[in-house]
Formats: sequence, C-alpha cells, structure tokens
Amino acid sequence: MTSTVDGRVARGARTRAAVLRRAADIASVDGLDGVSIGRLAADLSVSKAGVFAHFGSKEDLQLATVQAATERFLAEVWVPASAAPEGLARLVALYDCWLDYSRRRVFPGGCFFFGTAAEYHARPGRVRDALAEVRRRWLEAGAGLVAAAQDRGELDPACDPEALAFELDALGMAATLDDQLRDDAGAYDRARAAMVARLRAVATTPHPALD
Amino acid sequence: MTSTVDGRVARGARTRAAVLRRAADIASVDGLDGVSIGRLAADLSVSKAGVFAHFGSKEDLQLATVQAATERFLAEVWVPASAAPEGLARLVALYDCWLDYSRRRVFPGGCFFFGTAAEYHARPGRVRDALAEVRRRWLEAGAGLVAAAQDRGELDPACDPEALAFELDALGMAATLDDQLRDDAGAYDRARAAMVARLRAVATTPHPALD
Repeated sequence: MTSTVDGRVARGARTRAAVLRRAADIASVDGLDGVSIGRLAADLSVSKAGVFAHFGSKEDLQLATVQAATERFLAEVWVPASAAPEGLARLVALYDCWLDYSRRRVFPGGCFFFGTAAEYHARPGRVRDALAEVRRRWLEAGAGLVAAAQDRGELDPACDPEALAFELDALGMAATLDDQLRDDAGAYDRARAAMVARLRAVATTPHPALD
Repeated sequence: MTSTVDGRVARGARTRAAVLRRAADIASVDGLDGVSIGRLAADLSVSKAGVFAHFGSKEDLQLATVQAATERFLAEVWVPASAAPEGLARLVALYDCWLDYSRRRVFPGGCFFFGTAAEYHARPGRVRDALAEVRRRWLEAGAGLVAAAQDRGELDPACDPEALAFELDALGMAATLDDQLRDDAGAYDRARAAMVARLRAVATTPHPALD
C-alpha cells in the first residue's frame, strides 16, 4: 500500500518536473505567456487534467516555471563557476559560465531570464516580482564576487561592486540578444573581450584569469 | 468631389496613425503579441472593420507598428542628438537622448525596442527580421558617431567603433530593464556614469561632453 502511494507520489513529481522543464523551454522562445496547460499537455502527451492537477492557475504555472528555470540556471552557471578558485578567477568564471550557458542554448531561446524579464518588465504582478527577485540575486551574486576579489587585493578597492556587476551583466545580455535576434554568435566573444578589458582596468596586478 | 475624397484620405491617415501610436504603446508594455485589432478598436472607439481596413493581418499590423515606433524613436532620440556639435559631443548626446527617452517613458513600457526585440529574438519571421534591422541600424549609427569622433581626433583611433557601440548600447538596455523591472530609475545614472567612464578611457584629451 505504502509503496503504491510512494509510486504515485514519485510519478507525480516526475510529471511535474517534465512539465516545468518543457514550460521553461517554451517560455525561453515564446515567452511565459506562450506557456499554456493545453500546449504542455499536447507536447508531453498527458491529459490537461494531469497538468492542471499540479498547477491551480496559469500564474501558478508561470511562477513554478521561473523557479524551475532558476534551479537549472544555478546548476548550469553557478555550480560550475563555484568550482573556480575564490576571488577574481571565480568572478571571471561566473560570467564565462553564463555566456557559455546562453551560447549552448541550455534553454532553446537563449538565456531564459533575458527574454522573460523583458516580457514582464512593465507588467506589475507576482510574475514580474519573481523575475525582479531573480535579477536582484544575480546582480548581488556578481557584486559579491567583485567584493571578494577586492578583499583578496585583486581588484581596486575604490571600484563599486554593484556598478561593476551591472556593467558585466549588461554586456552578457546584449550578447544573448544579438546571438538570437541577429544570428551573431560572435557577440559572445565581443562581450567577453569587453568584460576582460573592464576587469583589467580595475585589476591591481596582471592575473591569469584575465589573460 | 475631390475635396470629399481628400477628406476621406486624410481621415484614413489620421485613423491609421492613431492606431499605430496606440499599438506601439501597448506593445511596449504587453509585447507585439498583446496588440490585436479588437483591442485597438475598443481602445480607440472605432470599428474593428475600420482598423482591419488598414492592416490585412496581425503580422502586417505588427510590422507597421515597428515602423511607426521607429519613426517616433528617430524623432525623440536621433533628431535632438543631431543638434549637438559633430563628433564626441554628438556621440554623448545620442546616448543621453536615448536614456532620457526611456526615462521619460515616451512609450509607457520604456524602450519599445528592448521589450519587443526580446519578445521576438528567438522567433524567426518577418517581425524578428524587422526588429533585427532596427537594431543593426541603431548599432551602426552609434559606431558611425564613434568613427566620426575618431576622425576628429577626439577618440583613440585604435578603438573598434562597433565594439564600443555594442558596449554603450548594452548599458542603456540594462538601465531600461532595471527602471521597469525593479523600479530602479537610478539605473540610468549608473549606465550614464559607466558610458562616460568608458569614453574617457578612449578619449585623446579631456572633453566638455565627458565632464
């Protein structure tokens, strides 16, 4: 009896994960408004009721999609970057992993958060709030690594960590846009070159991560 | 008789302009997919047939909206920037006028092109092509002003105009996103400070536009 229930729970969790994975893929191309219970049911060959059972409303589904995409982003960008040595090397690794994730199209539409944040940026509500919170944490993570590199004496202590993280992020966003909109995958190299030049300008000494 | 026809033509042109103005405002908030003939007819208190007469399909309406938004952008950004003296002063004026246009919310959702380019960046077709072309011309315009400033000896001739225009554009995009998504209007000042610092790094001499 217990194992039957366990089996059902496990099956439900698998369905939920598959739905959210597909939802994030769709959203990266067609936006979060392009995600519907009907489309997911058709794509995954499950009943609409089966999808609906997991998400009470379209907004709940969108919010769960943002959460699932965030976990995928962390696994694809934050986790590998964290393997780099502390300080400037990890800061450079963070943006390298981010550019690489967008270039590899972990999500088919490029960076999930660029497209969805732009989609919801002027539409107040829970979805916008969730995307704003992801962006806040992303910029904070970048600023935290800048500050760590400053603590280690690798970057000029006069440099504002939040301002620098804003600049590095801006370059990556522009690259993901040009890759998708203009089929210009060379934009990643351009963004990386600009990031490295920007970091060299505030590095206290030459550093192998900036070679 | 002629004057009656003229009156009808003029009235038609006014309706068309009003429809496209409203369509661009809607698209800046809800995306180009949020623009529909039914919604425009309701917003402008005209018949759906009256709107439909001007645009054969939703895609035609979207393409005409991009065109109309481009003309508004040129009038609000390019024309005032062109009043600045040639060279570095005009380059700085271009990005100042752009940040100002986004901050003033000429379109209620901020920069029309940021949101719509992100909406269509991964969706091949005529709308994406039109938005890619606008972006190409925008980056080319920035690079052209960089090259003009180099010709006048104001900027380091070794600097790549296209790369610099890409960087300056990236900063403005990030600012428009933060203003809208995170209610952080201070992002414009942050973007401008980064732009000025970037230009100072390649300026051959101090310049009043960079004070």
